[in-house]
Amino acid sequence: MNDFVTVNEVGPRDGLQSQGKILSIEERLLMINALLASGIRSIEVGSFVSPKAVPQMAGTGELFGQLPMTEVVAYSALVPNMRGYELALAAGAKSIAVVLSATETMNQRNINMSLEQSTAVCAELLQRAREDGIEGRAYVAVAFECPFEGLTPARVVESLTLRMLEAGARKVIVADTIGAANPKSVRDVLGSLIGLDSASMLSCHFHDTRGMALANVLAALELGVREFDSSIGGLGGCPFSPGATGNLATEDLVLMLHSMGLRSGIEPLALVVTVQRIQALAGVPLGGHAFRWLQRQASKPQEAVHV
Amino acid sequence: MNDFVTVNEVGPRDGLQSQGKILSIEERLLMINALLASGIRSIEVGSFVSPKAVPQMAGTGELFGQLPMTEVVAYSALVPNMRGYELALAAGAKSIAVVLSATETMNQRNINMSLEQSTAVCAELLQRAREDGIEGRAYVAVAFECPFEGLTPARVVESLTLRMLEAGARKVIVADTIGAANPKSVRDVLGSLIGLDSASMLSCHFHDTRGMALANVLAALELGVREFDSSIGGLGGCPFSPGATGNLATEDLVLMLHSMGLRSGIEPLALVVTVQRIQALAGVPLGGHAFRWLQRQASKPQEAVHV
Repeated sequence: MNDFVTVNEVGPRDGLQSQGKILSIEERLLMINALLASGIRSIEVGSFVSPKAVPQMAGTGELFGQLPMTEVVAYSALVPNMRGYELALAAGAKSIAVVLSATETMNQRNINMSLEQSTAVCAELLQRAREDGIEGRAYVAVAFECPFEGLTPARVVESLTLRMLEAGARKVIVADTIGAANPKSVRDVLGSLIGLDSASMLSCHFHDTRGMALANVLAALELGVREFDSSIGGLGGCPFSPGATGNLATEDLVLMLHSMGLRSGIEPLALVVTVQRIQALAGVPLGGHAFRWLQRQASKPQEAVHV
Repeated sequence: MNDFVTVNEVGPRDGLQSQGKILSIEERLLMINALLASGIRSIEVGSFVSPKAVPQMAGTGELFGQLPMTEVVAYSALVPNMRGYELALAAGAKSIAVVLSATETMNQRNINMSLEQSTAVCAELLQRAREDGIEGRAYVAVAFECPFEGLTPARVVESLTLRMLEAGARKVIVADTIGAANPKSVRDVLGSLIGLDSASMLSCHFHDTRGMALANVLAALELGVREFDSSIGGLGGCPFSPGATGNLATEDLVLMLHSMGLRSGIEPLALVVTVQRIQALAGVPLGGHAFRWLQRQASKPQEAVHV
């Protein structure tokens, strides 16, 4: 079994977009540099949405122009529509992500489109990206449960995932937008997808609202998934979903992977300074479940540290 | 696969023993009644140790005399030696637990005995319990990692577990005393034990120090383990182990089991009031990772609640 796991850091996008404090482009760049220092090499930088709707993400194009280490880091950005896509392309993005909610009501409430309309828009964006040689990624949001419609049928997630792969997505990120998944539902939803022999095309995005994010990661790892979203210090949540709080913290994910002998290229102890720096930038208390323990380890003499 | 999981509540013992505030027998009884109200039916009541060494546990005998619902609730108590055993017997305890640390240094530091001495004492207590018709339980502490000796070899845990089962233990509780286990080490340590076809003789005790307790529970569930220790609201930790904080919270465990369709007889939402009552008694902030979410659910109109 492949022992390398890609940790895709979503703090600069999913984390910041729900914050009261709006960071400047310079501050967002400092945040990204702090992430890179810990070994993180896959980052969702921002989204090309209306700065009026989401002021936290204003200037994402300018930010893209200043990103360091572009040869070795996988940077991506969310695009909601063709206008956003054109902006991402102009800014030099090499990877874009679309977001497709799995239920009718979530699409209506979130972006005022039907599920069918939203699916068509996402498919069109992915096709265009493929033509342009841009990597396409697709989120399937509320893939386990919708705050409006309840449990999401696994076959719906399967069908939307297939549609996104057919349209050209290189990766489909199965997203537990409101933190309602549990290890059994992870097996149920991913199980049918894995049957398609597509574990390498899948990633998972878990929230820790009910404390089960790492258990869900374990269930997905056991099914062969080798990419996960996480947010540094647990920063953020989805502002459109009632009750959605607590992204899975990057340090919690990395520590578990590291403890299990899986490689991510990220040093668990190096994340302590990263969390502290980003906490200062974001102006909110940060830190996942393992953070206090990691802090204690990081303050010990090096020879005494066993992570 | 058996879908009933026994949740053994250790708050009144493991939780309270490390607290600065010493609860009266009446308060400990109120705590136990609050636990029973949520459906909890397996409780570690206290320990028969010297009240000078552990004043928090003074009067455990008197407490046993006042326990409600003794016909349907499995109450147990820790006994460190034959004197403690006699006190437990006199108090009417029907189940006792011994604690055997898996490493030489932990035994020395904890109880000033060698591993061999400690093993002999535990075996003698279990044999005596068997003769008296008392259920014997045995903790194998620091079963994954010792704060003094590092990683605990799986074969040592296996050998000590076998010894305890031979001496008459009805259940061996594999304990991650310092919260250092991860899903892989859980598989490694339990894997060899499960090979002995003894899953029904095993229980696990996880701490959440590194945020991995529920992931570890999942790994153990997958191996067939159907009993777990937890502490209401995450109360407590081991006072003798440097860096050991954060018992697995009962509400986190119960919510995950419930979400996965496993039965424990405990209502996740009923635990909200239980945590609040016990927080008031213990005088410390309580609540596991899922507690805030459970609180929000418990405050909603009943028809809107989906746990």
